[in-house]
Amino acid sequence: MGELALIERIRELIGGPGPGTRIGIGDDGAVLEPSKGLTIFTCDAFVEGVHFRRDFASMRDVGFKCMVANVSDVAAMGGFPTQTVVSVCVGPETSEADVLELYDGMLIAARRYGAEIVGGDVVSSRSEFVVSVAMLGVVDPERVVTRRGAVPGDALVVTGALGGSEAGLQALRAGLAIEGRVKTAVRRHLAPTPRIAEAQALLDVATPHAMIDVSDGLSTDLRHMADESGVGIVLRAEAVPVSDAAREVAAEIGLDAVEVALASGEEFELVVARPASEVERSAEHVSAVTGTSLTPIGEVVEAGAGVLLVRKDGATEPLGRTGYEHRIGREM
Amino acid sequence: MGELALIERIRELIGGPGPGTRIGIGDDGAVLEPSKGLTIFTCDAFVEGVHFRRDFASMRDVGFKCMVANVSDVAAMGGFPTQTVVSVCVGPETSEADVLELYDGMLIAARRYGAEIVGGDVVSSRSEFVVSVAMLGVVDPERVVTRRGAVPGDALVVTGALGGSEAGLQALRAGLAIEGRVKTAVRRHLAPTPRIAEAQALLDVATPHAMIDVSDGLSTDLRHMADESGVGIVLRAEAVPVSDAAREVAAEIGLDAVEVALASGEEFELVVARPASEVERSAEHVSAVTGTSLTPIGEVVEAGAGVLLVRKDGATEPLGRTGYEHRIGREM
Repeated sequence: MGELALIERIRELIGGPGPGTRIGIGDDGAVLEPSKGLTIFTCDAFVEGVHFRRDFASMRDVGFKCMVANVSDVAAMGGFPTQTVVSVCVGPETSEADVLELYDGMLIAARRYGAEIVGGDVVSSRSEFVVSVAMLGVVDPERVVTRRGAVPGDALVVTGALGGSEAGLQALRAGLAIEGRVKTAVRRHLAPTPRIAEAQALLDVATPHAMIDVSDGLSTDLRHMADESGVGIVLRAEAVPVSDAAREVAAEIGLDAVEVALASGEEFELVVARPASEVERSAEHVSAVTGTSLTPIGEVVEAGAGVLLVRKDGATEPLGRTGYEHRIGREM
Repeated sequence: MGELALIERIRELIGGPGPGTRIGIGDDGAVLEPSKGLTIFTCDAFVEGVHFRRDFASMRDVGFKCMVANVSDVAAMGGFPTQTVVSVCVGPETSEADVLELYDGMLIAARRYGAEIVGGDVVSSRSEFVVSVAMLGVVDPERVVTRRGAVPGDALVVTGALGGSEAGLQALRAGLAIEGRVKTAVRRHLAPTPRIAEAQALLDVATPHAMIDVSDGLSTDLRHMADESGVGIVLRAEAVPVSDAAREVAAEIGLDAVEVALASGEEFELVVARPASEVERSAEHVSAVTGTSLTPIGEVVEAGAGVLLVRKDGATEPLGRTGYEHRIGREM
């Protein structure tokens, strides 16, 4: 099957243009109606052997996750996904059925979170599978949140619980039986949930000073927020919410659960910096609207204090870059 | 140098947010001001060994060309580029200097054609170099042109002259000395010119019924237009404008210049379907405004007639899919 026939099948899967899209897939470019707010524009590439392994993840999982990574970025800016374009580079070991299954996974995520696939291309590569997704979103000008507004005195809070994604990957690598909480961790790794609703609930209380999604690992993402805001950060290790699945898998493999939670990338939980006075109200509202917990994990401090991890016994250390960056250039 | 440090260097190269961009590179997503018209959204991936060879093209060439491919798509819809995001997957043989040179090439093209780089990521892959560019553009609602509106009786016209890109590639493969017209062809292959100004001049005369850029090769792209418009097409082989550089290189290598011109991808010339009565006026206006020639190459006919190539002697044959599609899965 040539590129043209495959693209025809993909067009059938995707269907006609949705609301907000005047011209969808199949032309030199899509044409979109004017946005009702500001536009968010983001992209993420997923590379076989770096972001996924085909013996761990189905093509449907890969498609779902690369779309969700972009949805999470839109969520972290305070917006809603609208349209997306996808470039897929397939290697010689990738069948037409694989590409269609990949699109199936992307479509599940895109439809669940309100994004329409409006364009893309499929090209061949010699070896690796690379999926690049670019996504547009819409955001109310009053509700844009960046990484840059954290100020000393702010509390840091995080949605949900961390560690499951990394624990799931470690479980797959260790060949653990995929059942019980191991299965929960593996699903968290393969099919994480972006926090669109939680971001909106956080915004309903008041626009946070800063917000970021946990995509590189909490340690690294807090460094991003500190760097962009020009502040220091104190993270309390014992306050970091670790998921039960992460705790159980970590214990089984012999890893420290808190370290796993600090390093775990692609969690897609949200970290928010906001005045301490708004934390309790935020936790109540987010929980009431979404069922998701909100946990205080530390404070924003002056830049001179650095970016610190405080252990249970009071010992402090520079917050390590233990997250996803270290995986770059390494095989999974 | 880690990902974060490299991205910091890239941010310095790119500079602060331009007009229309509220928040540029460095956050979970860019935030853009409302567009003054409809929004165009397109993407293209460039893969080492498929779209470029590092022994033929510098990283600056690769960056320039992958950006230009997207600019050309925006031109072919009737619009102007505004913002772009870039995913780069680098292999172990790619240095930091290579990535910065790639960005340099992308920035040359982006700035030349009015697009701002507002986001991106850099990830490592095991072997190949892949660059994925997604681009936004703006288009006046009255000036949107698709591939779909060609009607029987329309004349087909093309900007400029074809064949140089394929001839340049063949010259590189044959190891010809890069001088004179060979050099012209090679530059056409490595650094083609998108036709933003020509598209606008064509629109000034009247909105064309259909327009497409020559990215897959004239034969394939005319098939796209015919398929999308639900029409037939008659292309007159002897009318196809072949560049002097393509003629000379083809002669030197022993290829048929017209075949080279029909198959040559990434030319980024524009093919337009419009009433025959508008052709002369179009040619005069496009030439006056841009200096680019406009050449009638055929006619739109009823779908039942098929998509035909008419040779000089009157012999007809189905217009072959001789273009870029055939390169898919093949090494360059």
